[in-house]
Amino acid sequence: MPVAVFASATDDPAQWLPALRKAMPALEVRVWPEIGDPAEIDYAIVWKPPAGMLAGLPNLKVIYSLGAGIDAMLLDPTLPAGVPLVRMVDLSLTEGMIEYVAEQVLAIHRQARTYREHQAARRWQQHDQPLARDVTVGILGLGTLGGAVARALKGLNFGVAGWSRSPKAVEGVEGFAGAAQLDAFLARSQILVCLLPLTAETEDILDARLFAALPQGAWVVNAGRGPQLVDADLIAALDSGHLAGAVLDVFRTEPLPADHPFWAHPKIVLTPHIAASNNAHYATLRLAEQVARFERGEPMDDVVDRSRGY
Amino acid sequence: MPVAVFASATDDPAQWLPALRKAMPALEVRVWPEIGDPAEIDYAIVWKPPAGMLAGLPNLKVIYSLGAGIDAMLLDPTLPAGVPLVRMVDLSLTEGMIEYVAEQVLAIHRQARTYREHQAARRWQQHDQPLARDVTVGILGLGTLGGAVARALKGLNFGVAGWSRSPKAVEGVEGFAGAAQLDAFLARSQILVCLLPLTAETEDILDARLFAALPQGAWVVNAGRGPQLVDADLIAALDSGHLAGAVLDVFRTEPLPADHPFWAHPKIVLTPHIAASNNAHYATLRLAEQVARFERGEPMDDVVDRSRGY
Ligand SMILES: NC(=O)c1ccc[n+]([C@@H]2O[C@H](COP(=O)([O-])OP(=O)(O)OC[C@H]3O[C@@H](n4cnc5c(N)ncnc54)[C@H](OP(=O)(O)O)[C@@H]3O)[C@@H](O)[C@H]2O)c1
Ligand SMILES: NC(=O)c1ccc[n+]([C@@H]2O[C@H](COP(=O)([O-])OP(=O)(O)OC[C@H]3O[C@@H](n4cnc5c(N)ncnc54)[C@H](OP(=O)(O)O)[C@@H]3O)[C@@H](O)[C@H]2O)c1
Repeated sequence: MPVAVFASATDDPAQWLPALRKAMPALEVRVWPEIGDPAEIDYAIVWKPPAGMLAGLPNLKVIYSLGAGIDAMLLDPTLPAGVPLVRMVDLSLTEGMIEYVAEQVLAIHRQARTYREHQAARRWQQHDQPLARDVTVGILGLGTLGGAVARALKGLNFGVAGWSRSPKAVEGVEGFAGAAQLDAFLARSQILVCLLPLTAETEDILDARLFAALPQGAWVVNAGRGPQLVDADLIAALDSGHLAGAVLDVFRTEPLPADHPFWAHPKIVLTPHIAASNNAHYATLRLAEQVARFERGEPMDDVVDRSRGY
Repeated sequence: MPVAVFASATDDPAQWLPALRKAMPALEVRVWPEIGDPAEIDYAIVWKPPAGMLAGLPNLKVIYSLGAGIDAMLLDPTLPAGVPLVRMVDLSLTEGMIEYVAEQVLAIHRQARTYREHQAARRWQQHDQPLARDVTVGILGLGTLGGAVARALKGLNFGVAGWSRSPKAVEGVEGFAGAAQLDAFLARSQILVCLLPLTAETEDILDARLFAALPQGAWVVNAGRGPQLVDADLIAALDSGHLAGAVLDVFRTEPLPADHPFWAHPKIVLTPHIAASNNAHYATLRLAEQVARFERGEPMDDVVDRSRGY
């Protein structure tokens, strides 16, 4: 019977173990740190595991991340190099992200903040309202999440542009690729949504230079990773009036410190890293699929390319 | 050259005339009350026209409403009986309504109000979040707008149920029809969206009895017409805790009087009848299509059935 260790900084084992046992009855799951003999562990099912933990499992065959972004794991210099690292790509993360981005983009587009202020002031006033088809949302990162979000926004009739490293064809989406096409992409993006993975190349990408290349009055939505945003540059671009607002779900330090200027900035909407979370039920069904492929000797999906960092 | 009169209580002729002239160069458009000889008028293009105005046009051939809901026009006892009344069904109204309902349903589903309060309190707290696929939105009225909204919500992965007078098949939507199936439909609706036309049968439909048939904690979104809602019953259902909240775009009296309790109710989000407005550009393209059909002697779409009231 294969053995897995479950170790997560944020996911409650009491919720996950029953789901894992139901989805994979032939797998024994032990919860960190009660793992018995480390040599018996075949698989690690983890989210932000303690540094060095994985290096202590001599017969580890696969590392399954419970999250889509594995940037934090790659920071651990002791992460076993020869063991495949598989990230989570399942319907719960993808649909959660579609919901979050659609919610935020529609609230921006339909002037929700303005109408909320009017309600508070008992003011009945209608504002000019363009149609989604006459607005372009630009998506940084056209991967699993960015591609799904692009299709959902098209379904809501938005114009959509996307930017990726390699050229990508998503139906109805204007595609841009690489550094050379970034500025042309930004110039089209009235609402910019970041769904990039965090790598050396994407760190600090949301900076003063990038904001200046967006149209006057643009909005920025960051649902990628906190270190992609230069906090002070965002505040400057909002305060100068060049950007109209920002929606932030991820931060350099999480939880966001109570004294951070983002909390009370009048042009910032923030949420506590809730855009897309794993749903134990759906994610374990996906894990079971990946484990079964591995055990049949078939290639798994979503294996991280460590050289490019995602 | 055929002649039309343009008369609207809310639409600015300065915006509409250029669009009408561009879309129908062979039509002469006169703006009420400067209409010249009433006997020369072939078409009326109207929104809430002055009572009695249409009865004064002896050779009127078609009445084109600039809005989708013609309830107010039918209240005019002098409305010429033998002249076809055509309501507006165009992409701008349909897409606007899709945007509005998707925005409001996603904000409800994703707990936007809770997260806004947390931000104001500098509180970092994640809440349990079901997936849209595990939530059912019920749509009262599966016509042009309700049907389009149902498809859009399905596209965002929501479970969708719909209720209409005659049975309707919309793919992926659980259909209910008529008074006999109303309660079964309501019992499934965690978020109820009203997109019914206002008729004698739908007036006061959103009342205490209907709210009691919704599940505990349901939300109500009214984007139909104000008189469909019994205001005091809504407040009672919110205050008792049976309903979790309501989003209202339409009211018995518009503008909503400044002393109405809806303005400051903590569980009510209100907007000033902005869900779907005609866009002069797209609506006149649609009008031109309908006028051309009439002039070729072909049947027009969206002719109101005055006996059923919509
Ligand atoms: N806020 C949340 O709750 C939450 C939840 C889940 C995930 N996330 C974040 O979302 C990220 C994206 O997830 P995913 O599953 O969509 O990842 P993915 O499938 O790997 O897609 C990444 C996309 O980014 C593009 N990209 C990467 N580096 C680039 C560069 N230097 N220049 C241009 N484009 C670049 C890739 O281009 P190619 O297509 O050319 O490779 C790809 O289109 C995760 O890494 C995570 O940080 C956030
Ligand atoms: N808030 C805004 O900005 C805004 C903008 C535009 C329109 N509206 C409102 O939206 C309404 C709907 O527009 P629409 O174009 O979708 O109308 P529609 O195409 O005529 O559809 C009406 C739907 O309601 C159903 N219905 C009517 N009476 C019913 C009854 N007694 N019992 C059960 N179902 C009934 C109809 O059933 P059948 O399919 O069986 O006929 C149909 O499915 C308009 O009348 C207007 O009041 C609001």
